[in-house]
Order: sequence, then C-alpha cells, then structure tokens
Amino acid sequence: MASKPSIPKGTRDFSPTEVAKRQYIIQIIKTNFEKFGFQPIETPSFENSETLMGKYGEEGDRLIFKILNSGDYLKDVRKDIISSIDINVVFFDVIDALIKALTHKYEEYDGISNHLIDVLGERYLNSNENKFLKDIFSNTDVKNLLISFSKEAFIKTGENFADSLALRRKIFSLFFNRYFEQFQYLNSNKTTLEISEKALRYDLTVPFARYVVQHQNDIEFPFKRYQIQPVWRADRPQKGRFREFYQCDADVVGSTSLWQEVELVQLYDGVFSDLGLEGVTIKINNRKILSGIAEVIGASDKLIDFTVALDKLDKIGEDGVKKEMLQKGISETAIEKVQPLFNFTGTITEKIEKLASLLASSEEGMKGVEELKFICENVANLGMQKSILDLDVTLARGLNYYTGAIFEVAPPASVSMGSIGGGGRYDDLTGIFGLKNMSGVGISFGLDRIYLVIEELNLFPETVTVTTKALFINYGNTEAFYAMKAIAELRKAGIKVELYPDNAKVGKQFNHADKRNIPFAVIAGETEMNNNQFALKNLVSGEQVLLDFEELKEALL
Amino acid sequence: MASKPSIPKGTRDFSPTEVAKRQYIIQIIKTNFEKFGFQPIETPSFENSETLMGKYGEEGDRLIFKILNSGDYLKDVRKDIISSIDINVVFFDVIDALIKALTHKYEEYDGISNHLIDVLGERYLNSNENKFLKDIFSNTDVKNLLISFSKEAFIKTGENFADSLALRRKIFSLFFNRYFEQFQYLNSNKTTLEISEKALRYDLTVPFARYVVQHQNDIEFPFKRYQIQPVWRADRPQKGRFREFYQCDADVVGSTSLWQEVELVQLYDGVFSDLGLEGVTIKINNRKILSGIAEVIGASDKLIDFTVALDKLDKIGEDGVKKEMLQKGISETAIEKVQPLFNFTGTITEKIEKLASLLASSEEGMKGVEELKFICENVANLGMQKSILDLDVTLARGLNYYTGAIFEVAPPASVSMGSIGGGGRYDDLTGIFGLKNMSGVGISFGLDRIYLVIEELNLFPETVTVTTKALFINYGNTEAFYAMKAIAELRKAGIKVELYPDNAKVGKQFNHADKRNIPFAVIAGETEMNNNQFALKNLVSGEQVLLDFEELKEALL
Repeated sequence: MASKPSIPKGTRDFSPTEVAKRQYIIQIIKTNFEKFGFQPIETPSFENSETLMGKYGEEGDRLIFKILNSGDYLKDVRKDIISSIDINVVFFDVIDALIKALTHKYEEYDGISNHLIDVLGERYLNSNENKFLKDIFSNTDVKNLLISFSKEAFIKTGENFADSLALRRKIFSLFFNRYFEQFQYLNSNKTTLEISEKALRYDLTVPFARYVVQHQNDIEFPFKRYQIQPVWRADRPQKGRFREFYQCDADVVGSTSLWQEVELVQLYDGVFSDLGLEGVTIKINNRKILSGIAEVIGASDKLIDFTVALDKLDKIGEDGVKKEMLQKGISETAIEKVQPLFNFTGTITEKIEKLASLLASSEEGMKGVEELKFICENVANLGMQKSILDLDVTLARGLNYYTGAIFEVAPPASVSMGSIGGGGRYDDLTGIFGLKNMSGVGISFGLDRIYLVIEELNLFPETVTVTTKALFINYGNTEAFYAMKAIAELRKAGIKVELYPDNAKVGKQFNHADKRNIPFAVIAGETEMNNNQFALKNLVSGEQVLLDFEELKEALL
Repeated sequence: MASKPSIPKGTRDFSPTEVAKRQYIIQIIKTNFEKFGFQPIETPSFENSETLMGKYGEEGDRLIFKILNSGDYLKDVRKDIISSIDINVVFFDVIDALIKALTHKYEEYDGISNHLIDVLGERYLNSNENKFLKDIFSNTDVKNLLISFSKEAFIKTGENFADSLALRRKIFSLFFNRYFEQFQYLNSNKTTLEISEKALRYDLTVPFARYVVQHQNDIEFPFKRYQIQPVWRADRPQKGRFREFYQCDADVVGSTSLWQEVELVQLYDGVFSDLGLEGVTIKINNRKILSGIAEVIGASDKLIDFTVALDKLDKIGEDGVKKEMLQKGISETAIEKVQPLFNFTGTITEKIEKLASLLASSEEGMKGVEELKFICENVANLGMQKSILDLDVTLARGLNYYTGAIFEVAPPASVSMGSIGGGGRYDDLTGIFGLKNMSGVGISFGLDRIYLVIEELNLFPETVTVTTKALFINYGNTEAFYAMKAIAELRKAGIKVELYPDNAKVGKQFNHADKRNIPFAVIAGETEMNNNQFALKNLVSGEQVLLDFEELKEALL
C-alpha cells in the first residue's frame, strides 16, 4: 500500500489524551446516572432493519447506515430481474417494429414512431394475455419514451440501415439508459430491502423501546435505564457533526410521576456541577403549553412559525417578530391575544402566572401550566448546585414525539455553542413495538459539545492526562531487573510506573519521559542498585533525591 | 408491528446485571493496563474497506461486515450493465437464429442446435468486429449452453411455433437463468466492491497498525497502547461465538526489548489475580523454537501436523502420536531426532535445557531458546501472584504472523473451557501499511470467556450487582418532598438512593425494592417527617430503626 492509510470521512481516531478526557466526562455522567438510580443496559450495534426503518422519518431512513447481507446477497435480485424478463421480450418487439419501420424507408421520424406505436398498440393494447405489458403500453410516458428513443436512434444511425446488428445495439443501449432511469430498474431504495436486513443504531431511544418490549417480562417497572454507546448517521460530515458519535441517555419508563422531571433537572445540575461548569441553563417548556398557545392563536399548523419568530425577540425586537408572524399568516387578533409573551420576563413563578392567565381558556394549556409549576417549584425548593432553571416557551424541540416536559440545556453564556443536552416526556414510548401505555421521560448529554465547552473553559483537571507517574531508566539487564523488582511492588500498590524497555542512551530515555508528560524519572543505575537505593528525579523542577524503596513508594503514591 | 421485536442473530442485549459484571472485568483489565503504562486509544467502528480487506485471509474477507454506500449506490452497477449491453444484442441474434431454425421445421433438437451454431459461428467466430463476442462464442461452454437451452426451449414449447412472442419469452427466461449462473452477472463479490466502501472493524490489531502509520509523526515510540472496543464478524453464530463481541488488547510497538514479554506475562498475572482467579496457566512458546523443530524434522510444511499430533500426547500416548506423525508423512528419522519432546516434562528450566540440546544445530531454534530463557527466568525471579507460567512447544497459534513469543492463557484446571487470552510478537506489525521495521508485541483478553469462568467459579463480588442502596417510599407529594430533600443530600455524598416515583400502595413499593435487589427501604411518612426522622428498614433482616438525617447518612455510607 503506497499511500498513507486514512479513516472514513466523518469518523475519528481518539488519541490517549482525547480518550482520557472523554472518559473523564463519561465517568462523571455515569456516576451521576447511578446516584439517581439509573441502571446501564447495552444493545447491539446493529438492529434488524425493520426495527429502525420508518422510526425517524424519511430523512432518518436515508441517514441510517445499512449493512450488506453476507454470502451471495444478490441471489434474489437476480431472480427478480429474471422474473421481469417479460419486459425485455417487449423490447425485442419494439426493436423489430422499429426495424420494420426503417426498412419501409420512412423519411420522417414521426412516421417511424407512429408506425411503431401502431404495431405495438395492435399487439398489446387490446391484448388480455399479459396485464403487465398492457399496463406498460397504456402508459403515455412509456409511449413517449419509445417514440423519443426511436427518433434518437434514427437520427444517430442516419441512413445506414444495412447493419441491423449495429442498429439494434445502438437502440438497446439508448433504451436501457432511459429505461433504468424511468422504471427504476436496480433502484437503490428498492434493492436495499433485498440486500440488507441489518442497520447500525441511529439513536439510543428506539433500541431502548425495542429492549423494553422484548424483555418486558424480565423488567421491573418503573425502569430507570441509562445507556452510553455510539450511534451512526450517514449525515454530511461537517464541523462538529460526525458519522459516529456517542449518545449518553437516561430514561425512565413506566411511570407518569412528575418527580422524575424534577430529578432529571437535578441530574443535569449534578453532572454539570461535577464537571465544574458554572451557569449552565436548563431550559424547560411543556408540549401542552405549546398546544395551549396554538389553541389561543387559533392555528396549530402555525405553531412552529410562531415559536421560531418569538425566539428572535432579542434580535429583531417586538415589532420585527410581529411582522414576521403576520407574514407567516398569523392573524393580528391572534398576536394580540398572546401579547404577554412579548414581555415574557421575570422569575419562573412570574412567567408561570403569566401563562396561567394567558392560557386560562385552554384546558390542555392549563394542564401544562400545572405540570410546569410542580416541576419548577420543587426544583427551586430543593435547590440547584451550579445551574439555572429557566422557562422558555419558544423551546419546541421534538414537537412530533414529546407530549409533556421538554428540556434543552445551554452552556454557560461565555461559550458560544448550541445546546449540550436535551430531552422530554413521550407518553407512548413503546407503542411503535406494540406495548401501549408506557410513558417515558428522559434526557441526553451531548458528549462532543460538552468536551468542547470544558476544553474552551480549561476545566479538564490536569491529572486527567497524567497516566504514568514515573519512568525507570534502563541501564542494562542487571539494573533493569533491579528496577523491575521495584516496579512490580509499586504496581501492586496501584502506582503507574514503567521501565524504559531498551538500554538506550539516557538522554533519549529522559526525552521519552518528557514527551509522554511523565512527571518523574527513577534512576536505578549500578551505584543506586548496589546501595539498594533509587534516585527520584522531578522532571519539572529538575530536583533529584536519593530514596530507599519505601521512601520511593511513599513519594510516588 | 404485530410480532415482538427481536435482535439480529449472534448479537446480544446486556441487562443491567450483565453490564455491571462486564464492567467489573473491564475495569480490572483497564486498571492493570494503565498500571503497566499502556494508554488507551479508540478507532472508528468502521474503516475504509481497503484498510481491512485482504488482511485476514480469504475467510476473513468473507466474515467482514460491509456497510452499504449511501445514496444511489447502484448507479455504477447500472452503468456497468448498460455498457455490457453488447451481450444482450448477441442474444437477439441467437433467438433470431433459433426462430429461423424453428421455422425450417426441424424435427430434431440436434438439427436445431447445429443450425443455430452454424448461423452464429458464421457471424461471430470469423468476425474481428467484436473481440468480446468472439471470445464468448469461441468458448465451448457457451456453445454447449446455447445448444442446451435451445433444446430445452424446443422441448417445452413443443410444436406450437406460431406464437413467436411466447417462444422468445420462454427462451429468454431459460437463458437468463443460466447466463447469470455461468457468467456471474450481478456477482455478489464483484458488486460488493462497487456498492460498499466501508466495513466494520474485524479485530483491533489492523486498526491499531493503521493508526500507528497514520499518526506516526504524533506518536512517541515505543508506543504502549490498549484498546477495549467491540469487533464484528459475520460468523455462523453458535454457543459462545457472537457476531459482536469486545476485544481487550494491549500492544507495544517500536521496541524489540524482551522485557516487554516479561511484563506482558506479569500483566496477565495481575489481571487474573485481581479477578480472584487462582491457577490460570500462561503458556508460552516461541516461533523460532517451532522453526527450529521444523528444521530438525526436515519439513517446515509438516510443522502444524507435527504440533497437532504432539498436543495429543496426554490422550493417545507416545505410540499414538508417533503413528499419527508417520501417517502425516513425517519420517521415522525425524521423529527419532525430536524424541525428547515425547517426554517433555519438568520445570521450565529443565524444558529449556532439553530444547537447547535438541535444537543445538538450528541457529534460529537456539535464538528462540535464548529468548524463552530470558523471559522465563526473569518472570520466575520477579515472582508471579496467582498464575503459573508454562512452556508449551505445541502452542502454534498465529503461526502466520507471530515471529517471536507466542502466548496462550488457559483457565484454572477446574473449569473446562478454551483459552481466555492469547498474543505474541510480530516483527512487522505496520508493514502492511508501508511503515517498515516496527516490531510489535501484544496480548488480548477474551472478555466473554473470562466472564463465564468468573461466573462458573462464583467469583463476582456481591457488591457488583448492588446499584441502589435504599428506596424511599412515596407517601404523597408532601412527604415525597421531605424525602427528596434527604435524597439530594445523600446523593451529594455519593450515596445511591431513589424515591419511588409514584404514590402507589406501600406493598407494591416494597415489592419493587425487593425485585430490584435494593437492600434498604427508607420510610418517611407523615409521622417521621413531623419528627424530622427517617425509618430505615433492612429488607433482608426486616430490622427497622428510627434515625435522624445524619444517622441515616452514616448508615447508608
């Protein structure tokens, strides 16, 4: 292999430093998940295609990575082509008809085409012999296609009708090109179903729903599960968007208790506080509030337009927002009715009061107000560590599936980045797999973005990237054996130490420790060995001390 | 979806208990890897196909899971078919010839076939117009195929030649069926290269080699990396063999020092000792010893037969083994020369001495003896914790790539199971990707088998599966809030506690704690709340005590 090997676009290698930093975040998320009673499950990287397809919309279906069946996976595709051979037979007839037309030496294409249609029409259109062929020839598009390819062939072949083989070849080639396009012969979407029956996990929610339904008899509900695994999407790779990335999800299924929403806010707060992040904003909204607003503005189909416009209040001002709403077809009366939303400031309690009066006429809206009130009051009274809870009525993520609370997490204001987490409640999590009435609520952490935030704010502890504590310099096999005896004992005490494997120049060995960010070197040459000692050198300060084994152990602990 | 959802064969869901047990093993492996100075890397789940294909032999290529390209992946396949349309044109001629033959009313098939060949032969065999067509018709198999399908068509269609359309249809269908088989039109192997350019990781060694070459300028050598990630193989699933499983590998690249082999033996010992396994046998051999034996028996191609037979010594005795060797074509003289191997017992030191005298004439063999001696002596002098090192000259795994030490780990004798780990040294790890002279040595842990061994010997600590320490019983929102205040404080202290989310019947809540194996329940009803107390109930003993918050915290820590 001549060129340097590479990895597929949208994927990443993680270096030891990167793995250590990612593991640091994952470990804090896991610890908090478990403190809150969530239990880990793992599902296979690939699922049966029918489990995933159709669950994420048309766009999702396209972005799911499909795995090719093993063995002679094209067997059925070939069979299909053979069984559609009737179509091919028709083409011979078409060609025959065309040749007949040509031998009549028609000078005009239209004449040829008409003759062609005459011949074919006579044979197929009135025939009951083969419904399929009849259907094809009743199709105006097909007729036009036939006329057009016969014209084209005539033009390109010109007057030289002598070589019927060459003519046929030309016609066939032209026809097949069109035919594939028109009839989607070997169509990729259709063929995928025949040659791929497994697909890579696209998110963790659908596999979780599948897991719950499949193992429902072994699961004790309410079931609090967490899952930290990679997912794959055939998305166009771009900055910060990868084709393989981790999701970190915690969900409860089997209970409608709002205490879970309270706990999920605390869980977010717990993780971000442990990560040292100050001022993360956990934004909350409720699908029922949005439904209430839709009721009030009198157009549920305008809900997205409404929230998108309202979200721009800071940027384009009240007048700008109202103008956009009018442009989108929201009536002036409707906008007047929700006037309080244009001055939607104050504490959460004040905001909830405003919503209560605004949505008084909407039963569903008022249910949403009550839910929000319960969650926000309890969160406030229990206290947050380092995060802020805020009510954001423009929050409309997952509108298609969330039925209650909606969460989204914004990083500290000093960092310019999109959301670093999100979630919500969906009343029918497992319905797609036939298990009804299972309410679920969950949240997700955006590992890659959290990584970038922590990196930008310089919040990774220095110890994260320190792996080996001390490198023993190798002075040859006798001294190395002396070092190895100490190393074995130190490792038993849990201390990470290494021997430089080769008896290389001492400078090279120190250089190795330096490049690896190893903070100490242990010099155990002939002199030290004979005195049963070790020289411990601090590679940052340059300070060096002579120690016996116990002192060395103490110093490295 | 009517039927219960399922997962692809050969894959597994892991329940919370299974994840906890697996994580327990993985954590011990990781801790030891890091104590020995190995650093983690992670590579993408899929690699470019060219990175993987051809690296694991023909069998391996078959077992690699291929990922379907995105979008209209069949575009090029369709183009290929169109460009091979000349072949189709030939068939029309064949059919024409056949029809001509039929209209001559030949009564005998042979007559028809001969006429057919006459017509075709005349047209193509002497034609220089199309080399491809000429090649096809010069092919005896093709001629026979044509003759045979025309016969078949004739028989099945019988005397009714009137309907030339039906006849053509029949002939075409018969021909295409054969044609696909014969010429491998839409051949799966060939098509795979066109429709799939990515494949799932098959092991961790090839991606590691790719990683080292790709990032060689950023890597400080010798590079000690570990990697714990899933791999995928389209193998026939069977007991204990899965299509998705974890590999846990530690390798050093960039140094030939034998201290690494010494450390890898210690690393095995460290992991298995920490897992509480007594009497694991780490078997060692050396490729150079095997080469030496091959030299001595005078036939390197008989090496596998030789080691396989020798390995049966315990079962079929010396005579049985010798008989098998003779049957396999190993000469009596050769067998006599290696007579000491038939009584290959004693300490490692004694075994090494026997090998030294046996292989005295083989330079490579003696190099192997020296390497073994260095490794075994140092391991012995440094001491093992709970494992046994043994020299096994029948150990011949990875014969195609290992060049020095070969390792294989057998579980304690009381467990009947295959190897739970293996590894060795390969002098040219990265050569396949163009980076020469990089010696590597590494070992692997078989997670699934280790799990089964620990399970069978009942060595999982009970604490592994204890997740939540106490369940707070829910007596309604007021009491729940009182509980949640305590819960928040306990969690801050790192204690895993939960509130039952719903105000369900108390019996149901206790039952939930029981099913979840939660050892304690905390009763914080109206009375306890008013007294600022908590009743802590031990769910195993049934014992219940009244505590204030600090006492509760103390009790659950």
